[in-house]
Amino acid sequence: MATESTVATEQDRWTLHDDRALPAEPGVRALAREIYGATRALPIVSMHGHVDAGLLAADSPFGDPADLFVTPDHYLTRLLVSQATSPRGVPGVRDVGDLGVPRAVGHDAVPAPREVWRRFCTGWPLLRGTATRYWLEHALVDVFDAPVRPSAETADLLFDHLVEKLATPQMRPRALFERFGIELLATTDLPSSPLAGHAALRRDGWGERVVPTFRPDVVVRLDHARWRAELEATAQAADLEAGSYAAYLEVLRRRRAAFVAAGARATDHGMLTTSTAPLEPDDAARLYAAALRGETTTAQADAFAAHMLFEMARMSSEDGLVMQVHPGVLRDHDRRVRAAFGSDRGYDIPVPTDYVHGLRPVLEAFGHHPRFRMIAFTVDETAFSRELAPLAGVYPALRVGAPWWFLDAPDAMRRFREAVTETAGFANTSGFVDDTRAFCSIPARHDLARRTDAGYLARLVAEHRLELDEAVETAVDLAYRLPHESYPRPTRGLDPFPPEPTPENA
Amino acid sequence: MATESTVATEQDRWTLHDDRALPAEPGVRALAREIYGATRALPIVSMHGHVDAGLLAADSPFGDPADLFVTPDHYLTRLLVSQATSPRGVPGVRDVGDLGVPRAVGHDAVPAPREVWRRFCTGWPLLRGTATRYWLEHALVDVFDAPVRPSAETADLLFDHLVEKLATPQMRPRALFERFGIELLATTDLPSSPLAGHAALRRDGWGERVVPTFRPDVVVRLDHARWRAELEATAQAADLEAGSYAAYLEVLRRRRAAFVAAGARATDHGMLTTSTAPLEPDDAARLYAAALRGETTTAQADAFAAHMLFEMARMSSEDGLVMQVHPGVLRDHDRRVRAAFGSDRGYDIPVPTDYVHGLRPVLEAFGHHPRFRMIAFTVDETAFSRELAPLAGVYPALRVGAPWWFLDAPDAMRRFREAVTETAGFANTSGFVDDTRAFCSIPARHDLARRTDAGYLARLVAEHRLELDEAVETAVDLAYRLPHESYPRPTRGLDPFPPEPTPENA
Amino acid sequence: MATESTVATEQDRWTLHDDRALPAEPGVRALAREIYGATRALPIVSMHGHVDAGLLAADSPFGDPADLFVTPDHYLTRLLVSQATSPRGVPGVRDVGDLGVPRAVGHDAVPAPREVWRRFCTGWPLLRGTATRYWLEHALVDVFDAPVRPSAETADLLFDHLVEKLATPQMRPRALFERFGIELLATTDLPSSPLAGHAALRRDGWGERVVPTFRPDVVVRLDHARWRAELEATAQAADLEAGSYAAYLEVLRRRRAAFVAAGARATDHGMLTTSTAPLEPDDAARLYAAALRGETTTAQADAFAAHMLFEMARMSSEDGLVMQVHPGVLRDHDRRVRAAFGSDRGYDIPVPTDYVHGLRPVLEAFGHHPRFRMIAFTVDETAFSRELAPLAGVYPALRVGAPWWFLDAPDAMRRFREAVTETAGFANTSGFVDDTRAFCSIPARHDLARRTDAGYLARLVAEHRLELDEAVETAVDLAYRLPHESYPRPTRGLDPFPPEPTPENA
Repeated sequence: MATESTVATEQDRWTLHDDRALPAEPGVRALAREIYGATRALPIVSMHGHVDAGLLAADSPFGDPADLFVTPDHYLTRLLVSQATSPRGVPGVRDVGDLGVPRAVGHDAVPAPREVWRRFCTGWPLLRGTATRYWLEHALVDVFDAPVRPSAETADLLFDHLVEKLATPQMRPRALFERFGIELLATTDLPSSPLAGHAALRRDGWGERVVPTFRPDVVVRLDHARWRAELEATAQAADLEAGSYAAYLEVLRRRRAAFVAAGARATDHGMLTTSTAPLEPDDAARLYAAALRGETTTAQADAFAAHMLFEMARMSSEDGLVMQVHPGVLRDHDRRVRAAFGSDRGYDIPVPTDYVHGLRPVLEAFGHHPRFRMIAFTVDETAFSRELAPLAGVYPALRVGAPWWFLDAPDAMRRFREAVTETAGFANTSGFVDDTRAFCSIPARHDLARRTDAGYLARLVAEHRLELDEAVETAVDLAYRLPHESYPRPTRGLDPFPPEPTPENA
Repeated sequence: MATESTVATEQDRWTLHDDRALPAEPGVRALAREIYGATRALPIVSMHGHVDAGLLAADSPFGDPADLFVTPDHYLTRLLVSQATSPRGVPGVRDVGDLGVPRAVGHDAVPAPREVWRRFCTGWPLLRGTATRYWLEHALVDVFDAPVRPSAETADLLFDHLVEKLATPQMRPRALFERFGIELLATTDLPSSPLAGHAALRRDGWGERVVPTFRPDVVVRLDHARWRAELEATAQAADLEAGSYAAYLEVLRRRRAAFVAAGARATDHGMLTTSTAPLEPDDAARLYAAALRGETTTAQADAFAAHMLFEMARMSSEDGLVMQVHPGVLRDHDRRVRAAFGSDRGYDIPVPTDYVHGLRPVLEAFGHHPRFRMIAFTVDETAFSRELAPLAGVYPALRVGAPWWFLDAPDAMRRFREAVTETAGFANTSGFVDDTRAFCSIPARHDLARRTDAGYLARLVAEHRLELDEAVETAVDLAYRLPHESYPRPTRGLDPFPPEPTPENA
Repeated sequence: MATESTVATEQDRWTLHDDRALPAEPGVRALAREIYGATRALPIVSMHGHVDAGLLAADSPFGDPADLFVTPDHYLTRLLVSQATSPRGVPGVRDVGDLGVPRAVGHDAVPAPREVWRRFCTGWPLLRGTATRYWLEHALVDVFDAPVRPSAETADLLFDHLVEKLATPQMRPRALFERFGIELLATTDLPSSPLAGHAALRRDGWGERVVPTFRPDVVVRLDHARWRAELEATAQAADLEAGSYAAYLEVLRRRRAAFVAAGARATDHGMLTTSTAPLEPDDAARLYAAALRGETTTAQADAFAAHMLFEMARMSSEDGLVMQVHPGVLRDHDRRVRAAFGSDRGYDIPVPTDYVHGLRPVLEAFGHHPRFRMIAFTVDETAFSRELAPLAGVYPALRVGAPWWFLDAPDAMRRFREAVTETAGFANTSGFVDDTRAFCSIPARHDLARRTDAGYLARLVAEHRLELDEAVETAVDLAYRLPHESYPRPTRGLDPFPPEPTPENA
C-alpha cells in the first residue's frame, strides 16, 4: 500500500459527509439529524432480497472487485452501456459483455477483472446524481475504506486496495453480516430449492438470521421455457407426482410448508400485469392438463397465472406466508440482449400498472382475512397516490411496498412518502426492503432509506404537522418495527408481536 | 370538568401552532405568514359539500361525539379498519361495524358511542401524517376546545368534555355556521328532493346562505338499483309522467328549474369514466324505452349515461347551472362490504381517468358557450399537468376543480398548484371546495387550503416569480373570489360580478 | 418618450431580479448562484425550434408588438381566451381572432395591432405563475428595455416604446442573434422545402449558425389533407417521381441527403401514438399504392405512419441524422376552432403515452447502432421516471428529450430532473431545447433552464450527493456540451467531439 499514501493523504482522503441525503434547510436538517440519530444504529431487518444463502453458508471470501461491484450489478452496467455510442462512453464498452457478463452462447473471452474495474472507474462520472453512485460511495468508503474516488487514474490503486481488503477475514460474508448489524435476512428461492444453504446455516446456529422466500413464478407460468423442468424438480422435492391439477396444488402446498419449516416469512411474485382473476377449478385443471401435453397459448398461460395468484393468496391465508407482488415490469425489453447475455441485464422496463381491478378478486376474497397479508410493490409511481395508498388505507391485509428498484433513491423515496402518507399513514407501508443481490450495498441502502425518512419526518415536524416525539417513534417504526410487523412469522396467531428494537447507540 | 384540570394544566394544554402547514424555510415562512394573513379571516364560500340542509333547518344539537366525529367519516374509519389484523390495530375493531356503522341487513347491536369513541382515541397514532388528523386536530382544539390529545387514556375525559360542549347553544349548527364565518354553503341533493330543508331555511331568512346542488347520477344511470324509484319520485316532484324519453328530459328540466329557484348554483355528476359522447335522439329514446321495460345491458347504461352528460351540459348552457364532474372513482371496491354496510364506507378507489377524449364532445359543443361552465375534478393527479391544465388553460368554459378527496391534503394541494399553475395560471381553477359531510371540519379544510396556497405563493415570491402584492391579491382570489366566480348565480347574464370580500380582521 | 419618464422613474423602473428562479433557501441559493455563474454567459445552442430561416436571411425588422409578442404565441393567446366568458376575461376577447389571428375562411376584419396589444396588456394578470409570463418579462425587460409592467394603463406607452425600439438596427433579427449569443440555431422544415433561407444565410457566411431540420410528418401520414400536395412537392424537390413505394423511399432519402448537405443535424417527428411497428415491405407498398389511388383508411394510415417511423430510424442509422420523436399530443382538440382559425391555436392537448411498447421495434433494431440516435420527448410527465429514464438509462441510442411544451417551466423542469436523474444520470438527457417560434424568447428560455438546473444541482451539493466541482461541470454539460453531443454532425464518424464552450465571463 505504499502507493496509496502518495495519492491520498489524510487531508484529501475520501470520506462521506455525516449529513448526506438530509434536507438542506438548516432548521429541518437539525430535526432530521435528531430523528435519524434514533435509527442509524438500529439492526437491519432485510425482508426482501437476492443474496444467496450459500454465500453465507460457505462463508468463502468474495471474488475480485469487478465480480463484487460491477459485473452482476445491472443498475450499474446499464449506465455504462447507455453511453456506449457517445463521446462520454467508456472506451471498450459496447455492451454488458465488455463489463464481464459472459455470453449465453459462444465462448468469447470475457475481459479480465482488472480491465472491467478500470472501465467502471473510467465511467464513474456517468453515475453522477444516481442512487447507484450513492450506494457505491457508501460501500467503498464505509465498508472497504477506499482512499480515493474512482477514476481512470485511480482504478489500479483501488483495485489493489480492494483485493487486499477482500483477502482479510474481516471481509468474509459472515463477518460483514455481523458488522452490518443484520438481524434478519430473507433470501429468494425457487420452489424446487432443497434450501441446503439455509439448512447449513441452521446447523451453524444461523437459522434465525437467514430465512428463505418462496418464489414460484416459473412453475405458475405454463408457457415459461423452464416450466416443465422446474415443475418436475419441485414435484420431486415434494416427493409427489404433479400429474394432475390437484396434485400440482398439493406439490405447491408441501413446498410452502417446507419453506415455512425452514423459517420463511413470505412468498414473492413477479409478473407483467396484476390480474388475480380466479378460474373455475375445472377450467384450471383443463389448462394444466393441456400444458402437460405441451398445448398452451399465451392467453391460457396468462389466465392460469392470474388464477394461481388467487390460489397463492388462498394458501397464504392458510399457512400465513406473506404474499409479495411486484407487477408492472416488462422484462428483457431488448430480446437480442437476452439472447446474447441472458436476463437481468438492465433491460427491464416499467409499464403502467392497474392495481385496482387487478387485485380486486384477491382483496374481496381475502382482504379482511386475519391471516392473510399482501405487500404490493410498484415501479409505476403514479399508482402510489392514486391506487395503492387508497387500497392499503382500507384493506387490513394490504400494505404498500417500499419504493423499489428504480424508485429506492433519495428523491423517489421522498416522493413515495409524500404520495402515500396523507392517505394511508405510515403503518400501512411495508418498511424498507433493499431487494438487492449486492450484499455489500445492504447497509448503504438501509441507511439511505433511514436518512430519507428522517428528512420527510423532519419536514412534518417543522411544519407542525407532527410532534418531534411522534416523528422519532415513527422513524423507528419505519426502520425496524414495520419490517418485522409486515413480515411476521407464519405462526403469528401464537406470537403476534415482533421483538423490540435493540439500538446499540441510540 | 374537575378531572380535566388534573390532566391538562395550561402548560401542557393542547394547542395548534400558529404556523402549522406553512413552509419550513424561515424566509418563505415569513412571506407565507403575510399572505395567509390576508385570507385567514375571509368568509368561507363552500360551493361543494354534503352537509344536510335539514341539519341547519332544524338546528338541533349534534349527536354524541362518536356520531359527530367517527362513524360517518369514511376518511377516518378506513384508517382504523386498515390495521384491523395487525398488532397496531385497535382491539375490537375488525370492520366499520365496530365503529358504529349499522349493518345493512341483520340486527347486530352497534357498539355504544363511548366505546366507539374509545376505539377512535386508541387508534389516534394510526392517523399520523394524514390529512384526517390535521382536520380533527383543528376541529377538536379550535371548535371544541379539547384539552388533551386523544389516546386510550384520555378517551373518556374527551368524550365527557365533548358531550358537555355539544349540549351548549353555542354548538348548535346555526351558531357554528355563524362562528365559522360561512357566507354560502352548497348542499348536494337528489333530483326528487322537495328541498324542504332549503325552504325552511329560506323562511328563516337563510335562503341566501344555504343553496342546493342538483345531483342526478341515479336517474341517468339506467341500470342503477334505485333508478326506477328515484325516477318516479323525480317525475312526481316535477308533476309529470316520465313515460317517454322526451318527457324524461322535461322532468329533468323542470327539476333543474326548481333547483335554480331554490338558489342552486350547480349540478354534480359522479361517474367511473368521463365519456360524454352523445347519442342520436332516437337511439337515446330507444334505450330509455327499453329501460322502462326493464331491458338494459351494462353497455347500454354506459352509453346512455355518457349521452346524458352531454344533455346535462346542454341544459347547463340553457339554465346557467355550473356542471361539476368528478369521474374516475371505482365505488365499493369490496362488494361484500357494500352488502354488509352499504356504500361510502371508505372502499372507493381512484382509477386512471381520460379527460381528453372523454370531455371532447361537450367541450367542442359548449366549451366556448357564454353561459356554460364545467368544473372537472380528479383523484388521478397525473391528469393535472397532462390534461386538465392544458384543457382549462384554453377552453373558457372549463375550470380545474380544486384537489379533492384523497388529494385535499397539504402535500397533495401543493403538488396541485405546482402541476397546474405554470400551464393554466390561477383563474382557471375553481377555488377550494371542501366536499365534506363533516360540518365541523369545514373551517379546518378551508384554513388548510389557505395555508397551503399561501405557502405556494410565498415560494413564487421568494423565487422572484411573482410580486408580493400580486401574491396577496391572488391568495384572496383563491380563498374567496374564485369560488364565487366559479359558481356564479345562474342569472349571471344580469349580475356577472361576485360580491367583494369582507375580511373581518385582515 | 416624454410620457414615459412621467410614469417610470428610475426608482420604480421595471427590472428583473438577479436571483429569479433560483431556490429560496439561502444556503442552496448561494450554491445555485455559483453554479449558474458558470453557465449564464455560455453561448446558446438551440437544436430544436421553429424560427423561420427566412427571417434571418432577410434580416428585415420585426413587425409590430402584437405580431411579435401576441398573435402567433399560442402559449399566450390560449390563456387570454381561457377566461373569455369570465368576469376576469379581457373585454373584447372571445376567441383567438380577437387577438389578431385571421380566420381561415371569410374575411372578417382583424383588430388593429394596437388594439391586440391593449388586450394583451389588460390580460396580464391572467399570466401570473405561468412560464409564459416569465419569458415575456425577460424579453420585455432584457431585450426591449420596457420601462413598466403591462396593464390596461400602460399599454399604449409600451406599444409606442416597442415600436420605437423595433425600428432600430439593434433590433433586427441578425443583430439580436448576435446579442443573444446564439452559436447554433436549428429550424424546422418541410421535406419539400428548397431551404432557400438556409442557402441565402450560407452565402452570407451564416451556414454554420443556422441549420435546417427534416420534418416529414405530412408525407408519412397517408390520410393527411396535404399529403398528396406535399408529396408531389417533395418528389419534385428530389427530382424524382414518387409513383411507387420504392421511389417514395428514395425521394425521402434524397431529401434527407439534401438536408444533410445544408447542415441539418436531425429529423423531427410528431404523432399521436408512439407505435414504430414495421410492416412487411410488400404490405407497405400495397398501402402506399392504395393511397395514391385515394383509398386509405385511418387504420391503414396509422399502420403506415408507424412503419415509416421504423424506416426513418433505419435511414437515420445510415445517414446519421438524429431522430427526434415527440408523441402524445392530440392536435386541434376543438375541431371548430381549427376550422375557423387553423391549427396551432392552443388547443393541442397531451394524452397518456406508451413509450415502452411503442419504441420497442426501433430500439431492438437500432438501439445499439453506433450511428443511430433517438431523442424522445414527452408531455406526459409520468413517463419520465417510469419509462423514459429506464429506457434511456440502458439503450445507447436513446436520450430523454428536455421537458417540452407545457413542461419547460420552472417547477416542471425541476420535476424532470428529479424524475430522471436518479435512474439515468445527466448524460442520457438531450440538453435544453427551446422549441419556440418566438425568436425573442430564446434567451429567456435558455436562461430559465440554466437557472432551474443550477437550482437542482445546488440541492444535490447541499445534500452532499454531489461535489461542487462536479455540479459546475455538469451545469456546463447541460447548458452547452450536451446539446452539441446530443445533436452531433451526421458525419460524426469522422469528428465525434463537440467544440469546447467559450464562456465570455465564466
